[in-house]
Amino acid sequence: MTPAPFAELPEPPYYTVIFSSQRTAGDAGYEAMADRMVELAAQQAGFLGIESTRGDDGFGITVSYWESIEAIAAWKAHAEHRDAQAQGNARWYAHFELRIARVERAYSKRC
Amino acid sequence: MTPAPFAELPEPPYYTVIFSSQRTAGDAGYEAMADRMVELAAQQAGFLGIESTRGDDGFGITVSYWESIEAIAAWKAHAEHRDAQAQGNARWYAHFELRIARVERAYSKRC
Repeated sequence: MTPAPFAELPEPPYYTVIFSSQRTAGDAGYEAMADRMVELAAQQAGFLGIESTRGDDGFGITVSYWESIEAIAAWKAHAEHRDAQAQGNARWYAHFELRIARVERAYSKRC
Repeated sequence: MTPAPFAELPEPPYYTVIFSSQRTAGDAGYEAMADRMVELAAQQAGFLGIESTRGDDGFGITVSYWESIEAIAAWKAHAEHRDAQAQGNARWYAHFELRIARVERAYSKRC
C-alpha cells in the first residue's frame, strides 16, 4: 500500500510521532513490513494520517498523526507492531530517533 | 552544507516545525537556497537541530527543532528566510504542509 504523500488532517490540536531512521543495507523483509505497518496503522482507532519519505542514502523520516497520546500508546503496544519493532531494532535500523509531539498550529500551500 | 542526518537534541520539552513538501520539476536555484537556509537556521537563537530527506519522487520532509515558539516565530520572520519562503511559494513547491508541535517525549536506538 502506497499512501498519498500528504496526510489530510483535521484542525489542531492532535499528536504526532516523528520517526527518523537510518536503514541497514539490504531489504531483509523491510519493504513488506513497512507497507504492512502503514496498512495496519491506518486501521487503528485514533489514526489520522501518515507521511513518509526516504532518500537514496537510506535516511528516512516518517511522521504519523494521531488523535491522542492514548492512541499512540495503543499502537505502540499492538502485537504485530511490537514484532515489527523488535525486527527493526535487530535488523532494519542502524539508528533511529522517535519523538512524540503535540501539534498546535498547521498551515499549507497547494497549487 | 550537508548536516549530519540525525539531530542531537536536549531532553524534551522543545518545539518542532514539520515541513513536508512536493517539489516542482527542475532545480531553479532550490538546492543552493535549501543549503543556505540550513546554514542560516543553525545560526538563529533557539535553534536545536534539523533532519531532512527527500525521495526520488520529489516528496520531502524536513523537521527542525527549536527551544521555543518564539524562536520559531523569529526564524519565520527573518528577512532572508522570508525571501526564500516567497520563492518557495512561487516556484519551488507544488504543495507543502507545515505543522508546529511541542515535543513531549523522545527516545532512540543507536548501534
